Amino acid sequence: MSGPVLVLGSGLLGASIGLGLRARGIDVVVSDPSPTAQAVAVDIGAGRAFNKAEALAPQLVVVAAPPDVTAQVVADALTGYPSAVVVDIASVKGAILAELQAMDGLPQDSLSRYVGTHPMAGRELSGPAAARGELFNSMPWVLCASEASSAHAVKVAHSLAIDLDAVVFRFTPDEHDGAVALVSHLPQLMSSLVASRLAETPASSLSLAGNGLRDVTRIAASDPSLWVQILGANAPKLLEIMKGVRTDLDRLINTLSAPTAPGARLDLAQLMTEGNEGQSRIPGKHGGPAQQYSWLTVLVDDRPGQIASLLTEIGEIGVNVEDLRMDHSAGLQVGMVEISVLPAKRAGLVEDLMERGWKVVQ
Amino acid sequence: MSGPVLVLGSGLLGASIGLGLRARGIDVVVSDPSPTAQAVAVDIGAGRAFNKAEALAPQLVVVAAPPDVTAQVVADALTGYPSAVVVDIASVKGAILAELQAMDGLPQDSLSRYVGTHPMAGRELSGPAAARGELFNSMPWVLCASEASSAHAVKVAHSLAIDLDAVVFRFTPDEHDGAVALVSHLPQLMSSLVASRLAETPASSLSLAGNGLRDVTRIAASDPSLWVQILGANAPKLLEIMKGVRTDLDRLINTLSAPTAPGARLDLAQLMTEGNEGQSRIPGKHGGPAQQYSWLTVLVDDRPGQIASLLTEIGEIGVNVEDLRMDHSAGLQVGMVEISVLPAKRAGLVEDLMERGWKVVQ
Repeated sequence: MSGPVLVLGSGLLGASIGLGLRARGIDVVVSDPSPTAQAVAVDIGAGRAFNKAEALAPQLVVVAAPPDVTAQVVADALTGYPSAVVVDIASVKGAILAELQAMDGLPQDSLSRYVGTHPMAGRELSGPAAARGELFNSMPWVLCASEASSAHAVKVAHSLAIDLDAVVFRFTPDEHDGAVALVSHLPQLMSSLVASRLAETPASSLSLAGNGLRDVTRIAASDPSLWVQILGANAPKLLEIMKGVRTDLDRLINTLSAPTAPGARLDLAQLMTEGNEGQSRIPGKHGGPAQQYSWLTVLVDDRPGQIASLLTEIGEIGVNVEDLRMDHSAGLQVGMVEISVLPAKRAGLVEDLMERGWKVVQ
Repeated sequence: MSGPVLVLGSGLLGASIGLGLRARGIDVVVSDPSPTAQAVAVDIGAGRAFNKAEALAPQLVVVAAPPDVTAQVVADALTGYPSAVVVDIASVKGAILAELQAMDGLPQDSLSRYVGTHPMAGRELSGPAAARGELFNSMPWVLCASEASSAHAVKVAHSLAIDLDAVVFRFTPDEHDGAVALVSHLPQLMSSLVASRLAETPASSLSLAGNGLRDVTRIAASDPSLWVQILGANAPKLLEIMKGVRTDLDRLINTLSAPTAPGARLDLAQLMTEGNEGQSRIPGKHGGPAQQYSWLTVLVDDRPGQIASLLTEIGEIGVNVEDLRMDHSAGLQVGMVEISVLPAKRAGLVEDLMERGWKVVQ
C-alpha cells in the first residue's frame, strides 16, 4: 500500500486500522462525524485529521462506520473519490451490497472499486482510546468481492489485510453471511436465550453455577446496540438456522414430555451425539484440524504469582500448554487452573507436578 | 466421621470419595459390580475390597452408582445395613426420592437414614484411574434432606462433604432439581443444539469460528450416555424451562421474519438486554457477587514458557490475574492470552506490559 488511506469512522476498528497502517509509514487521514472521536484518534497517532479544504486523492477509503449507515457512507466515498478503492468492514455483507446495487444516483460501474470485507477482531472494549495497531494480527479477515469488483480493488483490499498482519479468507458475500450466521450469530442468540432465563432465578440457585453455564453465557454480555444492527442485517440467513433450531427444540420438548416412552432415551442420545459430532468439527488451535486435548486441573492459592510458578514448572518439565482456563470455586479463596496438553503428555505431567507438590485434582 | 464407610460404585466419584476419606485415616470399603473397576480402586488406595464373608456394620454407605440404578442400590443398602446412614450422589434428586417412597417392600421408616446429595465435581475423565482425593475440594456439595431424613443422617452426610473439603449447600430435592435444570441442564441442551447445527457446515465456514462459538459449544462434547440418564430423570423441570425457551425462540423467529417491521429492532434489543441482565447475575469468582473485570489481550509466541514469563512479569508489576483464557488464532503460530484484572488496574498494567516489550492488542 502506498497511501494515502482515508479512514471514515474512528471507533475501535477504524482507529486500530489507522494505527496499524501508520506503523508501516503509510499516510492515513481519519474522519469521524464525532469531533471528539476524531480528535482522540488523531491524538493516539491513528492518522492526521481530515481537512475539507485539502484536495485529497486517497488510494483507499476504509469505511468503518456503524453497520446501518455503512452502505450510504460507501456510496458517498465512491462518488466523492472517483479514483479510490473503497472497502467497508461491517460484519454482514449481503445486505450492504444489495443496498448499494439498488441505490438511485450511484453509478453502478463505480462498484468495480468496492470490496466488502470483514475483519473478525475487536470486542469487549470500544472507541478509539481502546485502539491497537496489532488488533488484527493473526485474526481472520474475510474479503467478499462482488461480481463487479475489479481485480485491482481486490488486490488493494488484500494488501490492507496483509499489512495489518491478518489471515485473509475469500468468500462470496452470501457464503460469508451464511458462515457468520452459523459460527457467530447463532451462538450469540442461543447464549442470550440461556442468559435471559436467569433474570428471575433465585440467587441461591445461581450459586450452583459452574463453568458450563459461564461458558455458554459469556457472550450474552455483548453490546445490544451493535448486535441489533448485525442480527437485523443478517435476518434471512439467521431465520433459516433458527427455524432448524426450533424443529430440534420441538422434538426435544416432545421427548421431555414423555421421558419414559419408547424411543425417548434414544432421541436424547441422538441430540447429545449430534452435538458431540458438531463440536468435534470446530477447528483447533491455529486453524488446524480439531484435536482432542487432555485436561488436568491443578489447585492453586488465589494470590499473585501462583499461576506463573505453575506454568514455569510445567515449562521446566518440558510440556507445552495448549490451552488454559481458570475455574472459580464457590466460597473459598482457592483457584483451579485447567490445563490442556497433548494426550500423550498428560500422565507424565500429572506425576511430575504431584512430585513437585502441586495438587492435581483431576 | 469414624467409619467404616462403604462406597458402592468405584467410578471416578466413588473412588475419589474413597481416596479422600482414606487420606483422613477413615476405614473405607469399596464395592463395584465390575471386578476390574473395584480392583483398580483398591490398587490406587481408595479403600479395601468388599468381602461378603465379613460382617460389616458401616457408619455410612455412599451410593455412587449410575443414576438410573441409584434408587434400587439405596434401597438395598438401607435394608442390608439397618444401622447405617445412606447417601447417594446422583445429580438429580427428586426422581430418586419418589422412586424410594413408592418402592414396595422398603420399610418407609428406613428413609430416616437416607439423605440425597449432589457433589458438583468431576468431569472430562471417568473411571477409578482418574480419581483424586481432592476432587471435591472447594466445589459445591448439595445436601437434599427429605422430610423423613433424621437430624443424625443429615449430620453424617454433612461430615462427609466437610471431610472432603467441599462447600456445603442445603436445598430441598425440588429446589435442587429446579436449580440444576437451569444452571446445568439448560446450558447443556442449548450447547448441544448449537453444536448439532455444525454437523453439515462446510469446513470453510467453520474456519471463521472464534471464541464465542468455542465457549458456547464446549460442553456439547459431554458424554451422551450419562446425560441421557440425567436429562431423563429431570424431565419435568427441564420441560418447563425449555417451553419458556421455545416461547422466546418463537418471538425471535417472528422478529427475524420481518426485521424491518415496526418494533422488530426493539424486540431484538430486548432479548439482548435480558441476556445482559441474566448474565450479570451469575456469581463471580469464589461465589462472591458478580464483578465486571476488565480484559486485556496479549500476543505471545506459541512455545513453552511464554505464558509463564508473561504471568511472572504481571506478578512483578503487582497485579493479580482474576481470570485467564487463551485465544486461538487462525493459521498462525501465535497465541493470544486474555487476562482479566480489576478495572482500576487495567490501564497501568497495559502501559507497564508495553514498556516491557509485550504486545498488548486490546
